[in-house]
Amino acid sequence: MSDRWILGVDIGGTNLVVAAVPFAGGEIAAIRTRPTRPDRGADAAVEDIGSMAREVVADASPHGGIADFVGVGIGCPGPLDLDAGSIVSTPNLGWDGYPIRDRVAAAVGLPASLDNDANCATYGEWWQGAARGLTSVVGVTLGTGIGGGLITEGLLVRGASGSAGEIGHMTIHLEGRRCGCGNRGCLEAYASGPNIAARAREGLEAGSTSILGDLVDGDLSRITAATIYDALVRGDAYAHEIMRDTGRYLGVGIANLVNLFNPEMVVVVGGVTRAERHLFDPLRAEVRERAFASAVDACTIVPGALPETAGVIGAAGIYLTDTAH
Amino acid sequence: MSDRWILGVDIGGTNLVVAAVPFAGGEIAAIRTRPTRPDRGADAAVEDIGSMAREVVADASPHGGIADFVGVGIGCPGPLDLDAGSIVSTPNLGWDGYPIRDRVAAAVGLPASLDNDANCATYGEWWQGAARGLTSVVGVTLGTGIGGGLITEGLLVRGASGSAGEIGHMTIHLEGRRCGCGNRGCLEAYASGPNIAARAREGLEAGSTSILGDLVDGDLSRITAATIYDALVRGDAYAHEIMRDTGRYLGVGIANLVNLFNPEMVVVVGGVTRAERHLFDPLRAEVRERAFASAVDACTIVPGALPETAGVIGAAGIYLTDTAH
Repeated sequence: MSDRWILGVDIGGTNLVVAAVPFAGGEIAAIRTRPTRPDRGADAAVEDIGSMAREVVADASPHGGIADFVGVGIGCPGPLDLDAGSIVSTPNLGWDGYPIRDRVAAAVGLPASLDNDANCATYGEWWQGAARGLTSVVGVTLGTGIGGGLITEGLLVRGASGSAGEIGHMTIHLEGRRCGCGNRGCLEAYASGPNIAARAREGLEAGSTSILGDLVDGDLSRITAATIYDALVRGDAYAHEIMRDTGRYLGVGIANLVNLFNPEMVVVVGGVTRAERHLFDPLRAEVRERAFASAVDACTIVPGALPETAGVIGAAGIYLTDTAH
Repeated sequence: MSDRWILGVDIGGTNLVVAAVPFAGGEIAAIRTRPTRPDRGADAAVEDIGSMAREVVADASPHGGIADFVGVGIGCPGPLDLDAGSIVSTPNLGWDGYPIRDRVAAAVGLPASLDNDANCATYGEWWQGAARGLTSVVGVTLGTGIGGGLITEGLLVRGASGSAGEIGHMTIHLEGRRCGCGNRGCLEAYASGPNIAARAREGLEAGSTSILGDLVDGDLSRITAATIYDALVRGDAYAHEIMRDTGRYLGVGIANLVNLFNPEMVVVVGGVTRAERHLFDPLRAEVRERAFASAVDACTIVPGALPETAGVIGAAGIYLTDTAH
């Protein structure tokens, strides 16, 4: 029997993930993860993806091989040129202008689709994860940056030039913190991993007491969102405060999304969701304070159900949807 | 020939509008406008709508009469309960809980649909106005409040409980101006008609010089957005400044929408758009400064093309779409 699988490829700043995703949904049959090492260049990474794909295909389908795979769906940080299948600019990869879709297609030997990582994670959570069966979903991805995906009536909103869902650069504070994008007051300037760490550092430099300094041997530049999570788990009050503020800032952004889309669910994806109620309690309280009651009542706000695989599953799912049109 | 027309009904805080809208698009055949006078109660207003409808039907179709009309589409300020066809709460009407859809249907003698006024105006501009033929459109309605409508892939986004598009209560400034909804920093707290006037008044009370005071015989409480427009036309520098700031605030909100939806067009509807470049120049500049260049390049921002009739045309169009499903 042919066409039983789709290959999913998730290209992150840190890791490459390749998996065999069943056509009809259900569990991943084989998966490989390797470090991206973006500095070696895109061609070397694509070569790696090709070899990972061969391993995954052999694992998932020892008899049928590649003939059992219908195509490859690729997720990649944006902005992307979806028509050309190329990267426009990605600070975390540095492969600007690279025709990633066709190069992966050639390396793997399958037709390919391309979408940005936040759309893929949202689609994965909708197809197989926390938002399964819903028609109106917003995904928020927290990491080095903040991204998002919008699903309405069961369709991913792409927009006029393929860049819909840029949640991270929503202004939430007119004269607020300077953002990496050059503007002021973007959500990302408060609640991305590096900015959570930056806020913590600024407070320490202003005299706040915390075990955070000890956890990085006094070198505050080494504080990351993960360090703050470690301090939180150890009961550090300052880390708790930083996480609470992070929840509030995210709550302001998500309240805006709830008012705009009136979704059935907001799925929040990313490492910082490990903080659970320390993040989600203040986040939900802020949403309730700022958004319309009827829209808040209609919406559940949850962490993703596929912490390691939403991206690769969603990339595969998007291949299916795109080729069905 | 039957079913040539749809009746459109636009219920505003100031006026009731009833029109015969051609099934296939094109010019309105007959239209009536009367003051709403909300304080007389909903039943009296609905009775008026019934008599306006009889006049419109007689004008548009002297021979066929009501048999030439397929249904009535109603637009009304929200929030609404779309399933029940009733008003949840509308400060400008005061008809909370009223089953407006079925009462209008009974008064007119046609099956009815109901949607909120901002969705209707957006749909009207998309079906017959500035955004005709596009697939991804955001409508922004400026008046006593600020509302919005989202069209993606040619469909109006309704959301989980029918309240999608609440653009006015998007937080743009964390610790900003107090809004009528109880929160701080909503777009509406800066750029709705009454808040444009309030900002002008505050500046005058703080010592700004302007002809505005003379235009209201020194009674600053009488300043409205229309007064500011009058002063602007007469070359008043302070009115110009107020309008420029209004454009900037709107630009922040619209930049957020451009990043989120990546629409082909943003259509801005409402009396304040008469200020033309005095509003739109600073608005577009702010959007360009805050949103992604690729999304800004893909999007035109324009005033509506149907200043008096977008709502009534859209209400009729929504009747068609809703009953087609």
